[in-house]
Amino acid sequence: MTDLLSGINSSQDLKSLTTGELIQLSEEIRKKIIEVVSKTGGHLGSNLGVVELTVALHRIFNSPEDKIVWDVGHQCYTHKLLTGRKKSFHTLRQSGGICGFPRREESSHDHFNTGHTSTSISMALGLSKAGELLGQNNQYIAVIGDGAMTGGMAFEALNHAGHIGANIIIVLNDNTMSISRNVGALSRYLNNLRMAPTYKKFRKDLDCFIANIPAIGPTMQKLELSVKHLLVHGMLFEMLGFTYLGPFDGHNIPLLLETFEKAKSMKGPRFIHVLTTKGKGYSPAEKDPTCLHGIAPFDIESGKPLKKKSKITYSEAFGRSLVKLAEENNTIVAITAAMPDGTGLSEFAKQFPERFFDVGIAEQHAVSLAAGLAANGARPVVAIYSTFLQRAFDQIILDVCLSNLPVTFCLDRAGLVGDDGPTHHGVFDISYLRFIPNLLFMAPKDEDELQDMLYTAIEYNGPCAIRYPRCEVMGVPVKKHPRKITPGKSEVLKDGNSLIIIGVGNMLKPAMDAAVLLEKEGISTKVINLRFIKPLDEDLIINSVLECKTVITVEDNVLTGGVGSSILELLEKKGIDNIKLARIGIPDRFIESGCTEVLYERCGLYSKGIVERAKKLLTSASMYNPGRLEKVRR
Amino acid sequence: MTDLLSGINSSQDLKSLTTGELIQLSEEIRKKIIEVVSKTGGHLGSNLGVVELTVALHRIFNSPEDKIVWDVGHQCYTHKLLTGRKKSFHTLRQSGGICGFPRREESSHDHFNTGHTSTSISMALGLSKAGELLGQNNQYIAVIGDGAMTGGMAFEALNHAGHIGANIIIVLNDNTMSISRNVGALSRYLNNLRMAPTYKKFRKDLDCFIANIPAIGPTMQKLELSVKHLLVHGMLFEMLGFTYLGPFDGHNIPLLLETFEKAKSMKGPRFIHVLTTKGKGYSPAEKDPTCLHGIAPFDIESGKPLKKKSKITYSEAFGRSLVKLAEENNTIVAITAAMPDGTGLSEFAKQFPERFFDVGIAEQHAVSLAAGLAANGARPVVAIYSTFLQRAFDQIILDVCLSNLPVTFCLDRAGLVGDDGPTHHGVFDISYLRFIPNLLFMAPKDEDELQDMLYTAIEYNGPCAIRYPRCEVMGVPVKKHPRKITPGKSEVLKDGNSLIIIGVGNMLKPAMDAAVLLEKEGISTKVINLRFIKPLDEDLIINSVLECKTVITVEDNVLTGGVGSSILELLEKKGIDNIKLARIGIPDRFIESGCTEVLYERCGLYSKGIVERAKKLLTSASMYNPGRLEKVRR
Repeated sequence: MTDLLSGINSSQDLKSLTTGELIQLSEEIRKKIIEVVSKTGGHLGSNLGVVELTVALHRIFNSPEDKIVWDVGHQCYTHKLLTGRKKSFHTLRQSGGICGFPRREESSHDHFNTGHTSTSISMALGLSKAGELLGQNNQYIAVIGDGAMTGGMAFEALNHAGHIGANIIIVLNDNTMSISRNVGALSRYLNNLRMAPTYKKFRKDLDCFIANIPAIGPTMQKLELSVKHLLVHGMLFEMLGFTYLGPFDGHNIPLLLETFEKAKSMKGPRFIHVLTTKGKGYSPAEKDPTCLHGIAPFDIESGKPLKKKSKITYSEAFGRSLVKLAEENNTIVAITAAMPDGTGLSEFAKQFPERFFDVGIAEQHAVSLAAGLAANGARPVVAIYSTFLQRAFDQIILDVCLSNLPVTFCLDRAGLVGDDGPTHHGVFDISYLRFIPNLLFMAPKDEDELQDMLYTAIEYNGPCAIRYPRCEVMGVPVKKHPRKITPGKSEVLKDGNSLIIIGVGNMLKPAMDAAVLLEKEGISTKVINLRFIKPLDEDLIINSVLECKTVITVEDNVLTGGVGSSILELLEKKGIDNIKLARIGIPDRFIESGCTEVLYERCGLYSKGIVERAKKLLTSASMYNPGRLEKVRR
Repeated sequence: MTDLLSGINSSQDLKSLTTGELIQLSEEIRKKIIEVVSKTGGHLGSNLGVVELTVALHRIFNSPEDKIVWDVGHQCYTHKLLTGRKKSFHTLRQSGGICGFPRREESSHDHFNTGHTSTSISMALGLSKAGELLGQNNQYIAVIGDGAMTGGMAFEALNHAGHIGANIIIVLNDNTMSISRNVGALSRYLNNLRMAPTYKKFRKDLDCFIANIPAIGPTMQKLELSVKHLLVHGMLFEMLGFTYLGPFDGHNIPLLLETFEKAKSMKGPRFIHVLTTKGKGYSPAEKDPTCLHGIAPFDIESGKPLKKKSKITYSEAFGRSLVKLAEENNTIVAITAAMPDGTGLSEFAKQFPERFFDVGIAEQHAVSLAAGLAANGARPVVAIYSTFLQRAFDQIILDVCLSNLPVTFCLDRAGLVGDDGPTHHGVFDISYLRFIPNLLFMAPKDEDELQDMLYTAIEYNGPCAIRYPRCEVMGVPVKKHPRKITPGKSEVLKDGNSLIIIGVGNMLKPAMDAAVLLEKEGISTKVINLRFIKPLDEDLIINSVLECKTVITVEDNVLTGGVGSSILELLEKKGIDNIKLARIGIPDRFIESGCTEVLYERCGLYSKGIVERAKKLLTSASMYNPGRLEKVRR
């Protein structure tokens, strides 16, 4: 068998292949993806599911003039292989390599830098309307999963596009999964559509019936048409103004080619329903699509990860603690937005099914649902990744905090997350939550403190947020019974009188390591575990600052509006104006993907980085008090 | 005719009234609302539209055990009159009076402090599930407008509630309007439902037809049922798992009582479609529901506002400038989320219909649509109120700024907005936008600068935001041709060498007034018009600060993470550590409704407040440099 993939350098090269060759090419691509992802890690299942779909799209449409928008974008590997990134494909998700999501910087075939769900219809609609305005005559295609369809903004876009009769094609990639199995009424509806063939006979009968209704004026004729529409498959989409085609087997290349060709010849809003299998063609991924959704480097034979975890993750620690607390307190309920596994809630779901809510990819609804639960006596815990909680920003402010309701937000994946890059780093949450009135905001230094904070939050009569990182726990013993932490009380981890390091959450580890190094050089260093990002422990901080006069803040959040700024604000509030303070955190730019440790080092967020910064700060001449230096270095 | 309203002190008092009396009571309530709102201003049309609906709900259901959630909540006046707030109703929206929206602090009948749309289904679902968990046996009702139904999170909640078969009742208050006339495919669908009676005969025929299909096994029987469901009205909602009842005349009390009684006797997710007329019973409001949506005090006879505006508003100035720019640049397109009038875009819509997009209440979609438009060569301007743009926070970060696309966000109603209170104040935007990489962020001191900034933004090759207040313009001449402002360049409005006031946008007026007063007392004051919240004019600020050493920042945004913090961050970055700096802004609590001027005064955001703060700062002993004072006071 010839190697077809090696001859494909751009999507134009597909145009000359036979259908049989396209089928063979798909198999080669599938192998390539498995081979590379087994080394780099990545989104395996979703990419294996759309190989034929992508090949067929690129065969029928002329990218980049015809514009394909991948919702989320985690399923873009075949697209990247076909659009000039075959040679760099082995660098997937590596520092300096190609991204696991579409990137405008990489290729003119990538129209947006994406990573969150449910945006593709809006984007394709925008491309289409601009194209119309500028006299283009192209096709605009959104490829969206059935999971992403549960996100409200997908509905907003359907509602708009259908109404204005826009020239767009929506390809619904229906694999009945988002990361976990999909939920919701829409999902059930799509399942019904899968039963397609049984409808056919019935439709014929109905056509006859409608044809035989005596005409009773134009209203009735219009009604006939409507009813025909309603009965065809996909009437939900038809009602919203789309022409529905489907459902089709998304692994059948001849059928896909025919369908896309047909869709291309039509005008207006078109909706193509394609059925695919997540993990298709790789049996470990077909069998366990949840585990093999996003995966670390793995053994191809077994599908098992190459590196064994030595400790549990913070997500798991959170899940365990919550189960423990929920056994004692039956008002505790838990909410996830399509991530029962990722957020560590699977065990809770198993033990307390009636107290567990998976709302689908619907963060806005998740938060306001929590408000409703809290307003009627329950104690909801909403576990959402830091970056995805951005979706529910307004609901946190108004629906929870303005009403001062006891909802606990658990922000998993706070800080840098590594390979998934800028759309998944959780580096804004301190800045976007810190200014919300009424909110108690915490970050634990380890898994035991996480349990204490979770307990504190659930017992607190108002809104709380807890942020913790995407990594393994510290490995400290977790107390059998959690202890309440007094709101607003920080913790001195180490005393000292020349320099204070104020750290938050996961940054306490490098902060403490730095303190040890500094002590070795004779610099007496105090380390404060902030614990409460809000409210601040004003007394402790002020007293410490007045004593040491030199402060370093360390946070895995952007510097703008972060923890360091909150200390600056406190000093201003108290009228303290000549303290040396340096903030270490994430700079004002989007951080790309790469190894988490390396990314943190680049930001100075590691023990040696902190030491260097501290020494520089201590030895720098104050612009107005050059003499003060000696005093500080006592 | 007896005065029934005077005898109603709680919703329990409705239970003994006859249907005829309920109709009379509704008329009395309608008069009361017109009378009070003509003095206080408020949401007139929406409240007149739901008088009968509210009376009927409170008659059939037992609030507060049965829980009624008002979407947005601007239509709660009848509800307030019936639930113990009749005596204080004349204080509506006044400082210290009752709020124009539901407030938990006011009454146990108000379950949430609301003000933004599309949240009620989520909230009612939460109340219901918590009630189930805690053994309650109550009804949970969401009253939502057809406008609010276009918000994606309403769909998210329908999708969830329908799937789990939750015990909730959704009352769709369909008046074909949000603030302006509704758009979108859903709106068209609802309009079709309004044709209800013509369907009836057809349904009967179809029932016969279905009954006569030869049984071909259980699949077919299930199909029969499905098809019946599909053909009944409201099948879109039926498909999502709801029992649909309607549509009904929402001003017909006997019909409403019957319907609610019927719904009460049922279980599971119920959807009641009610048709109402916005402004019902008050002819100026029926004739012009857009203008009489939210209204200032008015003359009852004519419906015209009592106070004439002397100048145009910033919204209007924005609209005019955009039309002017769009005449020259045909790539400019404008987007609104259901607010063509409120945002000043009506004239643009009229002149450039093909370049204007009203997406409905769908801020998330609005922003990602803009990303799509920008990615294909258009220059989209997205005009959304500061507080509503919170809904699209994630899309701004990822869909626009990460891809570095040239989208211009125009944040109307930035700062305090007065009567509408905490859900409408635009006091967070500086904090929630300032940390987003790539974003250029401006605020004009007057309408001419607004035009220059708009031009600058549209010509800039990346994302921009401009914030401006809800008030009349300054009244300065607007140049015929706008001028580009160099990104990141502030403006010195007045020179001085003892004190700097750094002001942002609308705060320059009190800042300049304060400077005049300070000069009179011999304090040489420099005033900087920041212009760019991001990036800062570092050179100008640093040089000024080093000269004066005493700085006041003035902003109509929360102090946490605001402009003042950005100056503190800059000083830290530059290692400047003994400057006296005081920040004036909105404190860390939700600001209630009231007269804007009074609210600003309370925050110290007025000329005398700035003067007092400045003098205090100048005379305060520095904690470490008590001697420095004299030097500064040169």
